[in-house]
Amino acid sequence: MTAPFTSLTEFRDTLAAASGPDAAAGSAATARNGQLTKPPGALGRLEDLAIWVAGWQGTDRPRIKAPQIVIFAGNHGICAQGVSLFPPEVTAQMVGNFQAGGAAINQLAQTFGARLDVVPLDLDRPTADFTTGPAMTEDEVVAALRAGWDAVASDTDLLVVGEMGIGNTTVAAAIAMALYGGAAADWTGRGTGVDDTGLARKTDAVTRGVALHPTTDPLQVLRCLGGREIAGMAGAMARARVAGIPMILDGFICCAAAAVLAQAVPGALDHAVAGHQSAEGAHARLLAQLDKAPLLSLGLRLGEGSGAALAIGVVQAAVNCHSGMMTFAEAAVSTA
Amino acid sequence: MTAPFTSLTEFRDTLAAASGPDAAAGSAATARNGQLTKPPGALGRLEDLAIWVAGWQGTDRPRIKAPQIVIFAGNHGICAQGVSLFPPEVTAQMVGNFQAGGAAINQLAQTFGARLDVVPLDLDRPTADFTTGPAMTEDEVVAALRAGWDAVASDTDLLVVGEMGIGNTTVAAAIAMALYGGAAADWTGRGTGVDDTGLARKTDAVTRGVALHPTTDPLQVLRCLGGREIAGMAGAMARARVAGIPMILDGFICCAAAAVLAQAVPGALDHAVAGHQSAEGAHARLLAQLDKAPLLSLGLRLGEGSGAALAIGVVQAAVNCHSGMMTFAEAAVSTA
Repeated sequence: MTAPFTSLTEFRDTLAAASGPDAAAGSAATARNGQLTKPPGALGRLEDLAIWVAGWQGTDRPRIKAPQIVIFAGNHGICAQGVSLFPPEVTAQMVGNFQAGGAAINQLAQTFGARLDVVPLDLDRPTADFTTGPAMTEDEVVAALRAGWDAVASDTDLLVVGEMGIGNTTVAAAIAMALYGGAAADWTGRGTGVDDTGLARKTDAVTRGVALHPTTDPLQVLRCLGGREIAGMAGAMARARVAGIPMILDGFICCAAAAVLAQAVPGALDHAVAGHQSAEGAHARLLAQLDKAPLLSLGLRLGEGSGAALAIGVVQAAVNCHSGMMTFAEAAVSTA
Repeated sequence: MTAPFTSLTEFRDTLAAASGPDAAAGSAATARNGQLTKPPGALGRLEDLAIWVAGWQGTDRPRIKAPQIVIFAGNHGICAQGVSLFPPEVTAQMVGNFQAGGAAINQLAQTFGARLDVVPLDLDRPTADFTTGPAMTEDEVVAALRAGWDAVASDTDLLVVGEMGIGNTTVAAAIAMALYGGAAADWTGRGTGVDDTGLARKTDAVTRGVALHPTTDPLQVLRCLGGREIAGMAGAMARARVAGIPMILDGFICCAAAAVLAQAVPGALDHAVAGHQSAEGAHARLLAQLDKAPLLSLGLRLGEGSGAALAIGVVQAAVNCHSGMMTFAEAAVSTA
C-alpha cells in the first residue's frame, strides 16, 4: 500500500482514522486463556501479550509467522556541534554492515526468524543543524514518513523498527524535551559513550535547538528537530497502526519517534509494546511518558532495533503458548 | 555417561571434582567482544552471557546448537497436609499433557528449538510426608539423583531443568528454610494459588518439617524433605556442571534444588545463570542467596522450566551476536 498522505496534515488524519483492535477476539482469547492447562495467571505477562496480539489479529488463536525488522538510517547536521564519539561516515558504513550481515541486528533477526530490511534515507544529505534552523522542510519530513510507511511488508504480522544515525540520541533528546518539557539534562545521555565534555555539548545543543523551535505541534517538532530515520520509524509505526499490526518498541530513539505519534493522535501506540528498557538514561523517563512497561531490561543501548528484536522471542513464545496449549478438558487434567 | 556415584558421599565427591570454565577461551572471547561492530558494552548483559558460554565451551566463538529441557515429575506425601489447591493426580495428568504436547513447556521448547524430555519419577509412590519422617531413604534420593544425571543428553550444549509435582512449592520452601534459616513464612508462598487458610497450612507444615529434621548437611536436607523431582533436577544440574554444560535456572523449585548443590559444594552453580524471577514471592530471596541476577522478570509462576525456557532465546541471541557479528576491521567501520 503506497502511503495515502502527501502532507503532515494528511498524515495526522490518516493516523487518526485508524481503528482499534477487535474487542470480540480479545474477549474470546481471554476466555481461552482461562481454560489452558496452567494455574490462572501462571504465565504472567505472556498471557496479556497473547490476548493483546489476539485483539489486533482478530482471532482467539493468534500466530506470529512473519515478523519484520526495518532499520532506517539517516545523517544529522547536528553532528557539526560535536555531539557524537563516532564520525558521521559510520552511518553509511554500518548500513553496509547491515547489508553484509555483520551487525548485531542481523544475528538477532536470524535468531528469531525475522525478515530484515534496511532503508537508508539520503545519507549523503544530512538534515540541517537544528541549532541554526529547521532540520527538514515539510516535503523532506513527509518523504521520510512515506518511506517508512512503504517499508512495511504486506504480510508482516509483528513489526520492529530500528535506526542507525550518528548523532541521533541528541535529536531524540531534543524531541523528547520539546514534547514533554523538563530540562535538556533530563533527556540527554551519553549515547555511544561520550565523555563529560561531549555530554555538555549535547545538552547545550538540545537546549539551544528546543529554544529555537518553540512549536507545540508534535509533527512540527519532528520536522524542526529531525531526523529522517526518526520520521521513517514514525511512518512505519503509523502504517502498522492503520494496518492493525502489533509492534515492539525499541530504545530511546525509537521511543522518541513513537512519542511524536502519541502526542499527535491519542491511541496512536495502542498497537505497541515496549520491548526493553535501554541503558540510555532517559529511556526509562520516556517509557513512563508513553505509559509502557518494558518486557526486557538487559542493559542494551545499541539501537538498530536490537532490544525490540530480542523481545520478538518473548512475543512469539506468548502467542505460541496461547494458541498451541491444550485446555484442561482437551488434556483431561483435573482443575483446582 | 551412567551416573558415577551410588551414594550421597560419592555424589558430593563427583560434584566437588568438577573443573571450571576455560579461562583462556573466556579471555579470547572478551578480546573478540571488544572488536565487534558496536560501541563497547552496548549489548549489555548479552556480552557477559556470550563470554560466559565461551568459557564453558572452551572457544571464543561459542554456539548453542542443542538446547535441552528436562522436566522431572514427582509426588509428595506432604500433600496429605492439604498444602495444594490441586489434587496429586494432576502430576501424572500433566506428565501426560507434556508427552502429548499440550503444555506451555512444549510450546516454549518448540519456539526456541529445544529438545524436551520428561522424566516421571515413581509417581505412584509419593515420598513420605516430611512432617512425620524423612521424605526419602538414601537409596531413594540417590536413585533420583542418578535419574537426573542420566537424563542429560550427550550432545546437550545448554540445559534447562524443570519440574511438575503437586505440593512441591511446600517442599522447596522447607529446603530453603533448612539451608538458609529464617522463618517458614519467609519461604512459603501461594504456589498455584492457595488461599490464606491453605497458606497457613503450608507454613505450618514447613515449620514442623524443618524442626523434625535438624540436619545441616545439604544433601541430607534434600533426602529428608524431598522430593524425587527436586533430586532429579539436582542430579541433572550436577551432570551439567561436571560436563561443562551451561544451564539456565528456572523458578523457586528449581532454585531450591540448585541451592542444595550450592550449599554442598562451593562453585557448584558456576555454570548456571538465572533465567527469570518468578512471581512466587520467595524466589527473589532465593536468587539473592544464590547471588544470581535474573535475565527476565515477566511474572511467570508456572514451573515446568517455563521461565528458563523463555530465557533460552536470550542466551541464543547473545551467543549468535558474539560469534556471528563482524569486527570493525572485517566490516571496514571506523572506530571512535
